[in-house]
Amino acid sequence: MPAFDVSEYQERVIKTKERMNKEGIEVLLTSNPANMNYLSGYDGKSYYVPQLLILKIDEEAPIWVGRAMDINGAKITTWLKEENIIGYSDSYVQSPITHPMNFVADFLKARGWASKAIGVEMDLAFFTARCFTALKESLPNTVFKDTTLLVNMVRQIKSEEEISYMKRAGQIIDKAMEAGIESIKEGARQCDAAANVYYALMHGTNEFGGDYPTGPPTFLVGEGASAAHLTWTDQKFNNNEVTILETAGCYKRYHCPLCRTVYIGNPPDKLKEIAKASVEALEVALDCIKPGLTCEEVEAKWWKAIGGPDVMKETHRLGYSLGVGYPPDWGEHTASMRPGDKTVLKQNMAFHLIPSIWEKDYGFGVSETIRVTADGCETFANVPRKLFVK
Amino acid sequence: MPAFDVSEYQERVIKTKERMNKEGIEVLLTSNPANMNYLSGYDGKSYYVPQLLILKIDEEAPIWVGRAMDINGAKITTWLKEENIIGYSDSYVQSPITHPMNFVADFLKARGWASKAIGVEMDLAFFTARCFTALKESLPNTVFKDTTLLVNMVRQIKSEEEISYMKRAGQIIDKAMEAGIESIKEGARQCDAAANVYYALMHGTNEFGGDYPTGPPTFLVGEGASAAHLTWTDQKFNNNEVTILETAGCYKRYHCPLCRTVYIGNPPDKLKEIAKASVEALEVALDCIKPGLTCEEVEAKWWKAIGGPDVMKETHRLGYSLGVGYPPDWGEHTASMRPGDKTVLKQNMAFHLIPSIWEKDYGFGVSETIRVTADGCETFANVPRKLFVK
Repeated sequence: MPAFDVSEYQERVIKTKERMNKEGIEVLLTSNPANMNYLSGYDGKSYYVPQLLILKIDEEAPIWVGRAMDINGAKITTWLKEENIIGYSDSYVQSPITHPMNFVADFLKARGWASKAIGVEMDLAFFTARCFTALKESLPNTVFKDTTLLVNMVRQIKSEEEISYMKRAGQIIDKAMEAGIESIKEGARQCDAAANVYYALMHGTNEFGGDYPTGPPTFLVGEGASAAHLTWTDQKFNNNEVTILETAGCYKRYHCPLCRTVYIGNPPDKLKEIAKASVEALEVALDCIKPGLTCEEVEAKWWKAIGGPDVMKETHRLGYSLGVGYPPDWGEHTASMRPGDKTVLKQNMAFHLIPSIWEKDYGFGVSETIRVTADGCETFANVPRKLFVK
Repeated sequence: MPAFDVSEYQERVIKTKERMNKEGIEVLLTSNPANMNYLSGYDGKSYYVPQLLILKIDEEAPIWVGRAMDINGAKITTWLKEENIIGYSDSYVQSPITHPMNFVADFLKARGWASKAIGVEMDLAFFTARCFTALKESLPNTVFKDTTLLVNMVRQIKSEEEISYMKRAGQIIDKAMEAGIESIKEGARQCDAAANVYYALMHGTNEFGGDYPTGPPTFLVGEGASAAHLTWTDQKFNNNEVTILETAGCYKRYHCPLCRTVYIGNPPDKLKEIAKASVEALEVALDCIKPGLTCEEVEAKWWKAIGGPDVMKETHRLGYSLGVGYPPDWGEHTASMRPGDKTVLKQNMAFHLIPSIWEKDYGFGVSETIRVTADGCETFANVPRKLFVK
């Protein structure tokens, strides 16, 4: 039932321990659901309560700790033995008196691990401020280190199996984007376009189905196209209106996001110009990506191609590393294509390049998700890069 | 564009300030997206980066602080004036050098508010451990108080307008649950059932459309029915298999969750018995709920009706308060129907009652979302409470 062979998880654990060793971490607490999935296979939507994996440097497998009612889910979806799956009772959940991290601290004490160098993911989703203070209160003498990106860094270079999942996510997004573009037409309701996109994302193909992406599709419609992260309404699409649609195909938690733009009517010249320049600059970036280049070098080439400060007041990130993901975002939080990021590109790193340009009145979005190959890069999706006109 | 009249938001701000006053809070930082929406109307899927509202006890309106690219989204979706919308540059995003909360701290200092009593939501989603330590590093002399549930408590009693949104969410879940039950049949793929459910959730009705619920539908199929929080696969439904489906209708971020169970084939007697007992016990709870009763009293009546310790080793929560919500969960984290919760029921509180029983081999789920009325309660959805047999 886990998405990969046990040997692949074990290899990931070994790589994680190498990094723990380098950073002087004896016990790693990883609470980010993408990291939990990566190391154990755990796949549940239980991330709204505290849960984590405990990985000790000299133990073979991580220990899953979560809500007792999710133990069966952990047994079904992970490669872990039953004795490595530990549950806390519901009395810990959203209680004013006690906190699941008190349970975790007691567990660490009982194992004699409280005096070890313990790493926690200080700045990843679902490890709240209270998770940390509860741990510290229960373990006042423990020294905690910030290991926010430790597992994420291991995730950066994908295995062939992970790449094959991202390719399937790419096939799914092809269908979903096609459904979205088809649904955006004068008089149709935005919510019905969203319904068609969601249908296509989960239906997938006849060979394999889709999983839920980490967040809802973005629909930036009309005035909303000047924004970045809005969703749909139940209003109708109008003539002379631009819509930017961004969503991701997802297969076994691996994502392939994509963004395209649709105009209903006769697009203004300015929009056509922005669209042409955006596509060309994106293609300059795609053409240059190869192992050995740094992230900031790719961004610099794109920035020059788009016209630099003549076009945009400020540079945003051109792209970011991604792969396995859970709500709230599919980003890996490691490498970003932006000035200052000196990450050297290696084969099987994966990025979402989304050089969107927001103008005061309307925007244009176009993106690609790629992996770095031996001598260049390849996209996972296959949707024309252009302004779609209806 | 905000979902309510400005006067409703202003009333919510006044109620929040009353509670701040009582708890000695001069400046409230509220970073939970449901709370941000509740006080300002803000509705963006930008919650994966730090953002918050700053509410000062003697100012009329909150100040939105978020990523600069989301400023236009805040202008479109909130009732706030432009000067109350503040953005930080992309250089703060997922940066190893600086953190958005350093920006927030600088803003508080510039306003002369750093020496005030500042409240932060220590244990709500997206206020990470690092958010808190970054704030404290930038404001070493500030005393922070934990105001995790301050706004959530204000949210407990819904306005008539909020109730009307939950009723619409109820109409949406009726259609989505019908689509789900219809789609669960021998030989159909689970992912296609998920696709149909998602379609129905967004399509809504001909009068109004749906919004994305806080998480994916739960599909507990076959062996998975012993778990609590799994989703679908692309495998087919089989004969002699139980499926528990839980999802929520969502209208303008207000939720109506519902859970039902489907059996393909001739259900075992044990499952039929559990189904009958579960429905009857749920109906005992629905019959007793009225203003004046406490949450633990409702749970005790349900626990007695279900057969207490003879049936379940341990009591879970019977239900929890809910309403407006964002990922990762639609729960309000305030009142829970469980032993020890002495919250007194009042008119227009809303709860999801989900007394699921997990057995080792299979489970059964049935739930209702209700509001407390003047002299009882009413459900928002209208789907038969029974084991559906295909």
